[in-house]
Amino acid sequence: MKVLVLGGDGFCGWPTALHLSAQGHEVTIVDNLARRCIDVELEVDSLTPISPMGVRIEVWKELTGRDIGFINLDLAQEYDRLVDVLLNERPDAVVHFAEQRAAPYSMRSPKAKRYTVDNNVNGTHNLLCAIVQTGLDISVVHLGTMGVYGYGWSGTAPIPEGYLTVKVPTPDGDLDREILHPANPGSVYHMTKTLDQLLFAFYAKNDGLRNTARHHGIVWGTQTPQTALDERLINRFDYDGDYGTVLNRFLMQAAIGHPLTVHGTGGQTRAFIHIRDTVRCVEIALNNPPKRGDQPSVFNQVTETYRVRDLAELISQKTGVEVANLPNPRKEAAENDLIVTRDRFLALGLEPTTLSEGLLEEVRDISSKYAHRADTSKIIARSVWNAGMETSPDLMR
Amino acid sequence: MKVLVLGGDGFCGWPTALHLSAQGHEVTIVDNLARRCIDVELEVDSLTPISPMGVRIEVWKELTGRDIGFINLDLAQEYDRLVDVLLNERPDAVVHFAEQRAAPYSMRSPKAKRYTVDNNVNGTHNLLCAIVQTGLDISVVHLGTMGVYGYGWSGTAPIPEGYLTVKVPTPDGDLDREILHPANPGSVYHMTKTLDQLLFAFYAKNDGLRNTARHHGIVWGTQTPQTALDERLINRFDYDGDYGTVLNRFLMQAAIGHPLTVHGTGGQTRAFIHIRDTVRCVEIALNNPPKRGDQPSVFNQVTETYRVRDLAELISQKTGVEVANLPNPRKEAAENDLIVTRDRFLALGLEPTTLSEGLLEEVRDISSKYAHRADTSKIIARSVWNAGMETSPDLMR
Repeated sequence: MKVLVLGGDGFCGWPTALHLSAQGHEVTIVDNLARRCIDVELEVDSLTPISPMGVRIEVWKELTGRDIGFINLDLAQEYDRLVDVLLNERPDAVVHFAEQRAAPYSMRSPKAKRYTVDNNVNGTHNLLCAIVQTGLDISVVHLGTMGVYGYGWSGTAPIPEGYLTVKVPTPDGDLDREILHPANPGSVYHMTKTLDQLLFAFYAKNDGLRNTARHHGIVWGTQTPQTALDERLINRFDYDGDYGTVLNRFLMQAAIGHPLTVHGTGGQTRAFIHIRDTVRCVEIALNNPPKRGDQPSVFNQVTETYRVRDLAELISQKTGVEVANLPNPRKEAAENDLIVTRDRFLALGLEPTTLSEGLLEEVRDISSKYAHRADTSKIIARSVWNAGMETSPDLMR
Repeated sequence: MKVLVLGGDGFCGWPTALHLSAQGHEVTIVDNLARRCIDVELEVDSLTPISPMGVRIEVWKELTGRDIGFINLDLAQEYDRLVDVLLNERPDAVVHFAEQRAAPYSMRSPKAKRYTVDNNVNGTHNLLCAIVQTGLDISVVHLGTMGVYGYGWSGTAPIPEGYLTVKVPTPDGDLDREILHPANPGSVYHMTKTLDQLLFAFYAKNDGLRNTARHHGIVWGTQTPQTALDERLINRFDYDGDYGTVLNRFLMQAAIGHPLTVHGTGGQTRAFIHIRDTVRCVEIALNNPPKRGDQPSVFNQVTETYRVRDLAELISQKTGVEVANLPNPRKEAAENDLIVTRDRFLALGLEPTTLSEGLLEEVRDISSKYAHRADTSKIIARSVWNAGMETSPDLMR
């Protein structure tokens, strides 16, 4: 299969591109390197020493004999070039990761809020519009987020995969209707993913586009079998307050002896998935596209759920590093339960990687190895959901 | 009350600005004159001879002694200036009409689709983001559309005002939940209004912004008491295939003896409201904002519903002009029923203007008076929802 990986330089995109290439797919990465530029803006860097795209692709070719193409293109800004790329490459499918993906960054400033909306909405819309313009039958596999659902909305009912059947009262009695699960985003970033859903639904209905959304949990881990082949293929590892995700941050904090930063009570229950499973899920989704005329296909890309404070305690017990409860910079419920349906990927053959000791240690080893690269002043989250929610300087250690 | 009217040069915006000024509010129009520029692009013009903004404001001052301010600003592109305008003007409320509002135009071309998404989503988001940045407590009254609901979704149940209470099945039995009515947009334009809803919901939840959506039906009529004061204050009248709306188009077609163009069977049932009621509804919404912390307030701004072929027959009978059934350029159900709840504006004192003979004639008189300005080659709709839906040239008369 010929596949374009939009955002193929990022944390999920790069290992996905390698996995698909390793499976024999013909892969071209399309990326404007925005994620690296945001590192420059935030004056932070991946803990792991990621190579430039040119080196990455060259090393992959050297080790495996496989070619990966690279096109530097801004999806949200360069529409005409995008159309040309689709017409020249004629891909069977596009994997779309090319969005600003950090909730804290999306709340950081008016500029960051506006960039997130502009980049994510126009990027997704350009892709759909361009596919219609070319007349090509290209299936799109999109990276959504569990955050489109909000948390704890439906009481004891597990969160379904995208669609929910509800009873609508009518004068003639209750009517069963399948609806897109109501949106309850918790940040500007998550909001853009709820907008994406409506774009996908419209273009499926009006133009018969074949779209798949994977609503993922928090991705943890760093390496896949492919990125581990050579240090020059290493995946990025974000530990900063904006882009670092909770479990990877704890493991890195443990590795350098920094207190484990829990926001609020740590009563938030979140869904998790290892990066190895993320890349497998993408391939499963590519191999099982919806039919023309179907509504978008939705998978929940989740393997486990944990409460944040339980994760912190687990790692604290293993490592002796203390837990630090900091003010929560997010506007969210202090405590929530989370039950997630994730039957579709399992039915299609996913064997979940769970939070095992071995894997935790692998990540911690990576953190230890590159601990000297850490700027500890970047660990505490500084982006806040409302003015006045900032952590006071005396809590910043 | 100090009010900014964004999009105050348009078909709804201009009479709204005059109505609010006449009621004693302090009004400033913010508009980039985009609607006039689209006329230039489409090589068409308002049937009525609308004056430039400078003349409009000068004449209003001359006749009433009242000042209306005007700021030429692109809401979607000039964020920093928008912040300055809010800080300088310190309005109590903003009425937001500043979006590309024609469904056919939004389906016309990739460029028009992309402009509609970029302009409407970034415009609305810039406004909300700027209000948060300034810290001012500004209520926003937005122009939504009945099209966010789709048609006939809920069987015999009337379309509620924004929110719907449904039963969600859980292991512990059905759970009552109030949800935003599921979105089912029929064009890229309508889609942008479903995105707007999620922006408003997020900023209400996260930042306490006070937002009101008015989901309007098709606006008909031309004049309000204020625009009728002087020809130089006249409101625009669109009759072309992209911007003309169905009832006004029929009346104009009747006035010039052009067959009444019904798309498909004309079995579409649509909601209508007269421009006089539109401007009153805006004022009612301004006077009844939600409280800080409330979810967005939603009104259905509709006074009557009609089936399109019934409207055509009504006007055909009155005028002797024949009905022409043309292929439907829209992807939509051939026939639909429509029952709309519209209790909130009525409860707050709206006395609906209905489709009376006198008013129909008033519009037809306007059409007759300016019939010499019509370019009849612009009447047939040419923008189509999918390639291949074009009306064949032999049907274009």
